[in-house]
Amino acid sequence: MTSPTAQTAGQADAASVTELCNDLAKRAGAASRALAGVSGEQRNAALHAIAEAIASAGDALKQANEKDLAAGREAGLAAAMLDRLTLTDARIAGMADAVRQIAAQADPLGRVMEGRVLPNGIRLQKVRVPIGVVLIIFESRPNVTCDAAALCLKSGNAVILRGGKEAKHSNAAIANCVRAGMEKAGLPAGASDAVQLVPTTDRAAVSELLKMEGRIDVCIPRGGESLIRAVVEQAHIPVIKHYTGNCHLYIDAACDEAMAVEIAVNAKTQRPGVCNATETIIVHREAADRGVLKQVCEALAGKGVEVRGDARTCCYYTEAKTAEEADWSAEYLDLVVAVRVVDGIECAIDHINRYGSKHTDAIVTTQVAAADRFVQAVDSANVFVNCSTRFSDGGQYGLGAEIGISTDKLHARGPMGADDLTTYKWVAYGNGQVRS
Amino acid sequence: MTSPTAQTAGQADAASVTELCNDLAKRAGAASRALAGVSGEQRNAALHAIAEAIASAGDALKQANEKDLAAGREAGLAAAMLDRLTLTDARIAGMADAVRQIAAQADPLGRVMEGRVLPNGIRLQKVRVPIGVVLIIFESRPNVTCDAAALCLKSGNAVILRGGKEAKHSNAAIANCVRAGMEKAGLPAGASDAVQLVPTTDRAAVSELLKMEGRIDVCIPRGGESLIRAVVEQAHIPVIKHYTGNCHLYIDAACDEAMAVEIAVNAKTQRPGVCNATETIIVHREAADRGVLKQVCEALAGKGVEVRGDARTCCYYTEAKTAEEADWSAEYLDLVVAVRVVDGIECAIDHINRYGSKHTDAIVTTQVAAADRFVQAVDSANVFVNCSTRFSDGGQYGLGAEIGISTDKLHARGPMGADDLTTYKWVAYGNGQVRS
Repeated sequence: MTSPTAQTAGQADAASVTELCNDLAKRAGAASRALAGVSGEQRNAALHAIAEAIASAGDALKQANEKDLAAGREAGLAAAMLDRLTLTDARIAGMADAVRQIAAQADPLGRVMEGRVLPNGIRLQKVRVPIGVVLIIFESRPNVTCDAAALCLKSGNAVILRGGKEAKHSNAAIANCVRAGMEKAGLPAGASDAVQLVPTTDRAAVSELLKMEGRIDVCIPRGGESLIRAVVEQAHIPVIKHYTGNCHLYIDAACDEAMAVEIAVNAKTQRPGVCNATETIIVHREAADRGVLKQVCEALAGKGVEVRGDARTCCYYTEAKTAEEADWSAEYLDLVVAVRVVDGIECAIDHINRYGSKHTDAIVTTQVAAADRFVQAVDSANVFVNCSTRFSDGGQYGLGAEIGISTDKLHARGPMGADDLTTYKWVAYGNGQVRS
Repeated sequence: MTSPTAQTAGQADAASVTELCNDLAKRAGAASRALAGVSGEQRNAALHAIAEAIASAGDALKQANEKDLAAGREAGLAAAMLDRLTLTDARIAGMADAVRQIAAQADPLGRVMEGRVLPNGIRLQKVRVPIGVVLIIFESRPNVTCDAAALCLKSGNAVILRGGKEAKHSNAAIANCVRAGMEKAGLPAGASDAVQLVPTTDRAAVSELLKMEGRIDVCIPRGGESLIRAVVEQAHIPVIKHYTGNCHLYIDAACDEAMAVEIAVNAKTQRPGVCNATETIIVHREAADRGVLKQVCEALAGKGVEVRGDARTCCYYTEAKTAEEADWSAEYLDLVVAVRVVDGIECAIDHINRYGSKHTDAIVTTQVAAADRFVQAVDSANVFVNCSTRFSDGGQYGLGAEIGISTDKLHARGPMGADDLTTYKWVAYGNGQVRS
């Protein structure tokens, strides 16, 4: 039981959070409508002004960032977290460059996806339009503030950004640059609310925003699995999800062995902490018999990777630890790899479809039939032949900055760019047609 | 408190429902994988065999339907409901025709939506693939069994169909024809489970199926708002929704008056019980001053329509009843219309975006600028110029039969055909590329 005083205080807080969220949604809705009348040229001019504002605010951004870093060091944040949080001159220049790249892309809006004249003379067109109001919930990386704002502006959407508390000063400083750029570019009144940062890190605000069906059109959470699960559980609005990246590399019976080793090492070790790094390597028995498994494991061990293998793997590579059932589902994000030997490609496909996270899975093979079968049967967003899983990335795909990677199947799959922040409407032009 | 006996019985039931649902999902998953290897030619051959099986089973279908009709009459179902439930020779022929039309459409699968060679030589393609396993929950119309099965088969998906209990004998008879056709066409083993009817109308089964995240990829409910809300509340899997169809017709200041009257009458009365019938007519004051509002209302009244107007409407057309606030949000599905007078197009747009259901809204105007503004600013799936709202329909759009009409903004919007039952995967073909 809470005391009457505590209860009153709680209610007052809840009321003010509700008011705050209502105001955010109202402004975002109005900005979304104002943006509908803004041309692609004006949106691009605003993006260039934002890039300029960021590029020229280096000192202010680093000062704000230093506050977050000091608080983070005091709170004992891990070194990797502090690194992700840090803004350097190079990273600030990189943010500005990303915005310019987004400006340089083709306009995602207004594209006629299909169109035809119906037998009754009605001209029917399916036209790309903005989704409306987008909510982005993200963890510590401050560049997301800038990337997400730029992608949403490019695609004509209003965005509500809710960053992690670790980066609150950095995010606010970046958001200031974004709004300064938009204002300098002379967007119409109201449109500058197209980018809003939630001004509190109170979790109650997230819960409220996630329930605003009809006022916020979609939520894209960016962060670890626990963040995403929490969002999905609370949301009454659609969520585009990216759970784990449990990526696989399958080395087929017939393969270029040097290529297999090189891709395995790259996919596992080039940047082990990211979602498109490989977590499990599956090797066809015949390739293992020819020594590929041992070569791969030795090369990985040489890079400091711990190998956890099934019973057969441990025969081919005796230094391997024994894998547990949980290893097949693990997203290590670390220098650890699970290795399994299979008797054929179908076993590899079954393993991937069972344990994988539908993110990115690759085959190394010289056989056309094996490549075709793998591409057809692996049910993942990104399916690769003879290249590293590390390539599943919006930048690599040429999408510019990415708003996220979807492991969902609806709406968008894999790396999401500005195009994926659009929907469409069916527009029909008649001259008096009625239905008989 | 339930007695121990009741509790045990309850548990046994729950266990058997769980087992049933697991079996349905398992078979659907296996069938989905089996279908992945079936060519477009084979899928079309199966569709033709299904059409043939339905066309030649008229007597069996009518017998099964008679059982449902007898039960419906006994249960006191409304005449409109009994009508929707009834299978006649013409409707049976219509079902078979719809399946043939779906067979005649272009294959939605395998289409390369975009493709390019990356600077590093990787050939990247974004390719259309089936979603996987689709759950359709629908009310009394038995033709949905056939349409949904055919659209899912065309798009390479396995479907679990859960029809209303009022049509259970009809649905089972139609599903038998579908499976007989698939077997006759010689689809591979396992693929005949691509179409399964839930063999119970126990609601617990629906609840279980809606929680099968990762095993069922999407649910499309077809029916009234209460059905859809119940599905959304329970679902842990994505749902593509179609809530109400509160469609508007806006008659602009400058318009062809005869066209305005003809479209208003058609949009309201040609088939008032369906979702794309117009429910509210908004008239510009200048058009009302010229007598258009009165002409429209008199023509509607002549067709038996009850007019509920705002205060100004009641001045132009004194026979109007006074509209309440609730009328602006109402989906009457009946010979009732709400009418409102506005001072300009912006008021009409605001009204539609506020009260509408983002389904279908039309303008009658002679002015290019008004048409352009309406098309841009009305945030609905279907936005029409100078034609009846009744045209928003998959058949009219040339999509063949429709799996539903989405009033959501993500994935699919408006009438959904076989294309909308697909997703894509990114396929990358390399020759040893690693990321640096």
